[in-house]
Amino acid sequence: MEFTEKTLKSEYVFNGKVIDVKRDEVLVSNGHQSLREVVEHTGGVVILALKNDKILVVKQFRYPIKSVSIELPAGKLEKDENPDYAAQRELEEETGYAADEWKSLGFIYTSPGFCDEKLHLYFANGLKYKNQHPDEDEIIECYEYSIDEIYSMIDNGIINDSKTICALLRARKYLSDD
Amino acid sequence: MEFTEKTLKSEYVFNGKVIDVKRDEVLVSNGHQSLREVVEHTGGVVILALKNDKILVVKQFRYPIKSVSIELPAGKLEKDENPDYAAQRELEEETGYAADEWKSLGFIYTSPGFCDEKLHLYFANGLKYKNQHPDEDEIIECYEYSIDEIYSMIDNGIINDSKTICALLRARKYLSDD
Repeated sequence: MEFTEKTLKSEYVFNGKVIDVKRDEVLVSNGHQSLREVVEHTGGVVILALKNDKILVVKQFRYPIKSVSIELPAGKLEKDENPDYAAQRELEEETGYAADEWKSLGFIYTSPGFCDEKLHLYFANGLKYKNQHPDEDEIIECYEYSIDEIYSMIDNGIINDSKTICALLRARKYLSDD
Repeated sequence: MEFTEKTLKSEYVFNGKVIDVKRDEVLVSNGHQSLREVVEHTGGVVILALKNDKILVVKQFRYPIKSVSIELPAGKLEKDENPDYAAQRELEEETGYAADEWKSLGFIYTSPGFCDEKLHLYFANGLKYKNQHPDEDEIIECYEYSIDEIYSMIDNGIINDSKTICALLRARKYLSDD
């Protein structure tokens, strides 16, 4: 059977700084009509940066989940920004480091059932410290952990952030002991 | 430095079927005030089910990303529903299978910067076919792939769904050749 959902009607119900939300009526290709609530997000970048065999992570309070989260450095794309450039910008803003070597790890959709957020994942190596300069409404602390420590934190539920876990899996060939 | 953000004002800007959206004014613990847009979601379950060393996946059209997505079986929690029960319900609804053996793989937050969606991950084994019964506004096709095929699809960008990739990593000790 063909898989499509045709938009019958589309209405924005919220326009924000970070997200827009629309409510659409769709015709599913099996003939049923349904409602779809869609969160629109500009997308972003996530960087797995390796410094002397340690992975850089950032610790910050995440307001929606009311808790401190340990994550890879990441950030939103600015309007029309190239993801490769955004990855360099965000790594330096959040950790202070620039990197010589960059590899794409593809992209992920964080929650494709109701949100279009697409995150571009990168591996970065050959780090040089320049200067950390986070946004003024963010408090970010940067730490370094070994690859084994990161895997333990994922397995023990200390790291529960989906983009961080996805980047670890996609980067595994760059993280082996060879 | 302490990591907190105190709510100064909170306002719902959208109440939907799947999500609610609020816009809050917060006081960051460094003294700055800021706005936070928060998508509230009831959360859900994701099941990595193994059938004769093959992993069950479902293929479906995802309206927000306007494309067909290959994902592990998953679904939303119903109001006050126990995640363990929801996992059994969703596996059977989407694939037709019931499982004898269940293991928790912890949980993930799909996008903690703007959304509270929490997904409980499970490993399921010992499958018996009962009866597939998806929602009538969903078209879902179920497939089986070897573990190596799933890893290839993740590496080649055929699978880009974050919950699916996270469950693979958390389940790796159950998927080894031992």
